Amino acid sequence: MEKRYKILVTNDDGIDSPGIAALAEAMSRLGDVFISAPDRQQSAVGHSLTISQTLRVHQVKREYAQKAYAINGTPSDCVKMALSVLMDETPDLVVSGINHGQNTAINILYSGTVAAATEGLLFNLPSIAFSLASHDLKRDLSAASEYAYRIAKNVLESKPQKGVLLNVNVPVLKLEEIKGIKVVPASNSYWEDTYERREDPFGREYFWFSGEYHVAEDGPDTDDNALRDGYVAITPVHFKFTNYEAIPEYKHLEDLK
Amino acid sequence: MEKRYKILVTNDDGIDSPGIAALAEAMSRLGDVFISAPDRQQSAVGHSLTISQTLRVHQVKREYAQKAYAINGTPSDCVKMALSVLMDETPDLVVSGINHGQNTAINILYSGTVAAATEGLLFNLPSIAFSLASHDLKRDLSAASEYAYRIAKNVLESKPQKGVLLNVNVPVLKLEEIKGIKVVPASNSYWEDTYERREDPFGREYFWFSGEYHVAEDGPDTDDNALRDGYVAITPVHFKFTNYEAIPEYKHLEDLK
Repeated sequence: MEKRYKILVTNDDGIDSPGIAALAEAMSRLGDVFISAPDRQQSAVGHSLTISQTLRVHQVKREYAQKAYAINGTPSDCVKMALSVLMDETPDLVVSGINHGQNTAINILYSGTVAAATEGLLFNLPSIAFSLASHDLKRDLSAASEYAYRIAKNVLESKPQKGVLLNVNVPVLKLEEIKGIKVVPASNSYWEDTYERREDPFGREYFWFSGEYHVAEDGPDTDDNALRDGYVAITPVHFKFTNYEAIPEYKHLEDLK
Repeated sequence: MEKRYKILVTNDDGIDSPGIAALAEAMSRLGDVFISAPDRQQSAVGHSLTISQTLRVHQVKREYAQKAYAINGTPSDCVKMALSVLMDETPDLVVSGINHGQNTAINILYSGTVAAATEGLLFNLPSIAFSLASHDLKRDLSAASEYAYRIAKNVLESKPQKGVLLNVNVPVLKLEEIKGIKVVPASNSYWEDTYERREDPFGREYFWFSGEYHVAEDGPDTDDNALRDGYVAITPVHFKFTNYEAIPEYKHLEDLK
């Protein structure tokens, strides 16, 4: 009998977004799907945890999933709760997405989709974040879904013995138009922050964040550029906080009186 | 005439926490203080941005500050808005804290205090996050405040030409008991996630996150261990997402059909 993998599926757009349905369908071709996802939109929540509010878990029914839970928390909460409370067995893989909007370069820091997969990595599990390079919720997800299947299948079959986080971004193209996959570093692209000032009907000022994203011209073999060139971009991600090069530069602070 | 520095002060515990007042006081000894901080408690929000809700800015009065703004946003929002909308001039330094609770090791990922300082770094400014190793809001902040002053003064006077993020953690000791400063890497300490199940008065289940923090025994020269030994721990922090070592390991994905 073929091995049935156990796959935890989550996202940051909420349990009712088309992206998680497409991902659950793709993963159901590989194994038993367990969904634990926010009960509502949670974009740009980064690595938030809910520690000042109570967490409520609602079991729901979703196509392609053996079990599905909607939680009033962040993507990180959903993965932590699934792995430590809700699932009977440790999954073989944690997947997050399919996000509507690319999570390349510095977006890795802000992305709830990537944050969810990071929790899988911290549990020492293979984890993959999937994003489609379009914010349009009506975009066809079939190419991204097909690539999610292919990549997840390969990762599962290669039996990784340790945590890894693959950040996958898929261009907005038909399956046959996608040029292939590139495994590349993250770009140095950045946001130029702007805030749009408006007035409410009572004349009171409010703001919308509306940054402009500048794609770094750092060569074809980086995530943003590969994506722009029509490739699926895969970046192995880790979080290394210590700036070792700067330690000697600041060592003199030890002499401060 | 002595140069008056311009210093942006923020935090994640909210504009009315004792920690930000202590930090504003310390910074006012060095220059003109500008406060832009969340209007309420925002712990563990990580690098969240508010993009699905409107942002409201209220100018308030606070001791030690030339100007002070309370925002219904996250620490990252507050720094971004200060630097791109609210301040007339770019500050010489961005400081965040004094947080109630240490932000060592993996907490760097979840900490709103560190996230706020990260925005300073992304604007290419010297930035410092200050945390006191106690969650008790009544703890004496005078030693942490004195170290904030000394460290910020040194950083300002050394005129850094580029962005840097120093993550400073202060032990819960009297000033004269603190053994000194150590400039060290982040520890490999980790959270063991647990969720406490409770029932509300209506018999419905809810959960509280209540992880247990395990300090890694990775030698005296790491942040958690230096802190435990009675030192102020300083770690230069950066966010490097690409796991370059793993790229060759996953290069075969480029052959996926």
